[in-house]
Amino acid sequence: MREFELLAKVFAHNPELPASVVIPPGDDMGAITFGEKTLLIAVDQVIDGVHFTLEQTPIEKVGRKAITRNLSDVAAMASLPVAAVAAVSLPRGFDGAEALADALRRTGAAYGCPVVGGDVAAGEGPLTISVTVLADPAGIEPVLRRGANVGDGVYVTGVLGGSLASGHHLDFEPRIALARKLPRPTAMIDLSDGLARDLPHLVAGARLDRLPVRPGCTWRQAVGDGEDYELLFTHPGPVPDTIDGVTITRIGVVTGDDRLVLTLDGRDHDLTGQGWEHVT
Amino acid sequence: MREFELLAKVFAHNPELPASVVIPPGDDMGAITFGEKTLLIAVDQVIDGVHFTLEQTPIEKVGRKAITRNLSDVAAMASLPVAAVAAVSLPRGFDGAEALADALRRTGAAYGCPVVGGDVAAGEGPLTISVTVLADPAGIEPVLRRGANVGDGVYVTGVLGGSLASGHHLDFEPRIALARKLPRPTAMIDLSDGLARDLPHLVAGARLDRLPVRPGCTWRQAVGDGEDYELLFTHPGPVPDTIDGVTITRIGVVTGDDRLVLTLDGRDHDLTGQGWEHVT
Repeated sequence: MREFELLAKVFAHNPELPASVVIPPGDDMGAITFGEKTLLIAVDQVIDGVHFTLEQTPIEKVGRKAITRNLSDVAAMASLPVAAVAAVSLPRGFDGAEALADALRRTGAAYGCPVVGGDVAAGEGPLTISVTVLADPAGIEPVLRRGANVGDGVYVTGVLGGSLASGHHLDFEPRIALARKLPRPTAMIDLSDGLARDLPHLVAGARLDRLPVRPGCTWRQAVGDGEDYELLFTHPGPVPDTIDGVTITRIGVVTGDDRLVLTLDGRDHDLTGQGWEHVT
Repeated sequence: MREFELLAKVFAHNPELPASVVIPPGDDMGAITFGEKTLLIAVDQVIDGVHFTLEQTPIEKVGRKAITRNLSDVAAMASLPVAAVAAVSLPRGFDGAEALADALRRTGAAYGCPVVGGDVAAGEGPLTISVTVLADPAGIEPVLRRGANVGDGVYVTGVLGGSLASGHHLDFEPRIALARKLPRPTAMIDLSDGLARDLPHLVAGARLDRLPVRPGCTWRQAVGDGEDYELLFTHPGPVPDTIDGVTITRIGVVTGDDRLVLTLDGRDHDLTGQGWEHVT
């Protein structure tokens, strides 16, 4: 097992969960019962040299991404963000703390997700920003990663590939509103590690025959680059071709086997192992 | 202004908060209205070389501290923990990820605070663990840092000083249950940066004449060492001398001026600037 997958599993189980935990670790967000409601929560971090390159990125965009990356998880549950907190570890001598905090606050505010707390420390490491986001199902039962059925269509929003080169990973719009307008998916995830790595979280087997590729990118980039922050979901169909001006593409179908196959120009490509290992 | 204080202020204001934010950034926890209830949230991080020394500390104790440090914030609000999430940035080659996750989970479970999500990344920096904790007032209005009145007594639980040398910073019991048994404080905080640094968060002026000093420590260590994770609070009195076997000491009184003075053996000591700047 590759290091990346091993790490991802570290928090993906917890044998001693009380009944208040209604969505256990391992989905895009966890959830607990709080009062009469379901409360969703997730944490995600961005690290200089892994998820962005501080030398080449305005601090405002770094702060934006730290928030929107989490909001993409909220979208993947078809929920609405309600608040966030951030922990920031600053490299010695870093002078952008105020600008960074401003960017976090402004981005949160723009998406109805006020930043209600934070912790700042000066360390010896690279700039590291950990954001926790809370969300409210707000009338829509959260959509899980599990639930896809054989025969469901596999759908993706927008276009895939070239996120780092195009700057999409800094400027993307989390699909919060769109997710809530979809006919209810049987399963959903946001694409952060690349289609080939994220699709197995939804299904064991699928046959794909179409990809919405970003202009200038190859199909290999579309399945492997990662950081697309688009929605990947399954649905028996039909699904609208566009919602709010965003293209939705039926890229294939859920099969009963355990192979992920992409057929293009009459040739089959095995998608296993095509995914992206955060290397900016 | 020293770097430490500057950093602490980065998140201590947010001019654009919606009405759903009932406790803004700057207290031990922030709070929002969620459904019919108040939900408390806070984030705190521990970093190798700043808050612990990985070479000298079993990974189980590192994980424990990452959780209990946050639970101490819950205690400072007189609330109950309900869930936590953790983001961990691992140094290259670190092989303790599973043991660390286990320690986080087990510590959370022991305090009724299930770990419901996490994010793990491999970075170039030191081991960094950011924990977000959620809490429920559970029938007790959260106790804020503001609210102390001139003439209130100043009280502290347990003993102070020498936390790093004694290992207390790894083994302390967050005062969650005790906080909820106190006669309602007018203001409260948990002691993480040392009495001399944390008391100014509650009051502008106080005259102290007594300190519960850990055996073997000096009074300067008791006011300056930090990492005590005891409760510091104000109350008009009377307050019991012990609760659940933990000593509670009246260390002084809130004054109307802006001086923090400790009188010992007939001599006045100005406490300004005696606090601790995380240097393990």
